Amino acid sequence: MTKKPLILVTNDDGITAPGIRALIEVMNTIGDVVVVAPDSPQSGMGHAITLDSMLYLEQVTIDNGSQKEYSCSGTPADCVKLGISEILDRRPDLCVSGINHGSNSSINVIYSGTMSAAIEAGLEGVPSIGFSLLDFNWNANFESVKEYVKNIALNVLENGLQEGVVLNVNFPKLEKEAIKGVRICRQAKANWVEKFDKRVSPQGKEYYWLTGKFVNLDKGDDTDEWALENGYVSVVPVQFDLTAHHSIAKLNTWDLNK
Amino acid sequence: MTKKPLILVTNDDGITAPGIRALIEVMNTIGDVVVVAPDSPQSGMGHAITLDSMLYLEQVTIDNGSQKEYSCSGTPADCVKLGISEILDRRPDLCVSGINHGSNSSINVIYSGTMSAAIEAGLEGVPSIGFSLLDFNWNANFESVKEYVKNIALNVLENGLQEGVVLNVNFPKLEKEAIKGVRICRQAKANWVEKFDKRVSPQGKEYYWLTGKFVNLDKGDDTDEWALENGYVSVVPVQFDLTAHHSIAKLNTWDLNK
Repeated sequence: MTKKPLILVTNDDGITAPGIRALIEVMNTIGDVVVVAPDSPQSGMGHAITLDSMLYLEQVTIDNGSQKEYSCSGTPADCVKLGISEILDRRPDLCVSGINHGSNSSINVIYSGTMSAAIEAGLEGVPSIGFSLLDFNWNANFESVKEYVKNIALNVLENGLQEGVVLNVNFPKLEKEAIKGVRICRQAKANWVEKFDKRVSPQGKEYYWLTGKFVNLDKGDDTDEWALENGYVSVVPVQFDLTAHHSIAKLNTWDLNK
Repeated sequence: MTKKPLILVTNDDGITAPGIRALIEVMNTIGDVVVVAPDSPQSGMGHAITLDSMLYLEQVTIDNGSQKEYSCSGTPADCVKLGISEILDRRPDLCVSGINHGSNSSINVIYSGTMSAAIEAGLEGVPSIGFSLLDFNWNANFESVKEYVKNIALNVLENGLQEGVVLNVNFPKLEKEAIKGVRICRQAKANWVEKFDKRVSPQGKEYYWLTGKFVNLDKGDDTDEWALENGYVSVVPVQFDLTAHHSIAKLNTWDLNK
């Protein structure tokens, strides 16, 4: 009998979010599932880790699925570190993070707690995928993407991923029948143009709320933004070697040793 | 008369840290300096941004230098966003972050608040540098690296940086005379092997502290780790297009549309 794959599940919206519940349900059909996820929402946490405080970890039961679950007071990256180092008795065969309520396409990847968890697992040599749905609503419709989630996870389990690469998967907000399929993409060159909402507290102190507008000036049809706008699931291979190798020769012409 | 460059300074150790005070002192000799930095330490914050809370920003005077200074309740990335969007009346010519108390070489770049600030500025099209010294001590010796900081900043102001690239500069913990010079490097393939220190609170509840050992199995002599171990200043060009372009063709052979 073939051994079932061991799958670590996490997210950044917190362990009770419908997105992770949908992901757990799908993963239970593939393997043995252990969940280690934040006890509260951690969106926008980037690749934060907890260095100056302690972490609580507690076994919990949230539904009657076959998974084992642990709720953690830390960030998504903390959850992966704790899961691999303290909870699992062997290296997992797969780590999946999400399904995020909201997009992690293009530049959002660098602010994303969902993707930081996937990258953290990738760093530890575990094949890893972050899933996100372009719908911020708590009651977003995850039913329409479950088959895609399962198929992508099975492909990663079967084929593996290249060293130093994890997958960033984003789903358009569409009914299942309207989704046109999957496209392998590059990260679009898009960014946020900030606008701060300046207010005054009842005590007379000024404060700011961060708001912003997403601007995509990248017109390529090979980007994640193009795929999502045109009804496709986007899959971007993401690396954590951040070296801009193409800049090294240029910088070597500078006089930095005078 | 040539206009003096406008320089935005930030960090992740907090606005009163000796590392940023040294950086401000150097930048005051080059241009008009505006500081927007966290009001408390933010190490390990990665590229976190504040989405679910408000931000306070307060003009402060910390020493008698010519800079203008603002203390902010947010993360390093928040500081850069607020600085560019709310405080400066024109786009800065340069953003510098640091000097961090401790290394941001190799994989530390992805956990680093110092580098997330530099990357945030890079995203906004501002030439940008993160500086770090391999000494965690509050009273680390920043004197020995000031000339290097100035020369690297002047080179970036003069030559610019390629689009989508910022610099990650790390200094070895050495006396000035012992530093052998500057090397342009790639990010070493190294990582942390976690070890959690498990304890029990006086109330009987278990908790964990994250600890770990840095392991570098990358033997290349073109890495930042090699440069630093051999007495050089490391300069890594860092990009925020995380696409693993070399994986796209491979993934296109998968059957993801069945």
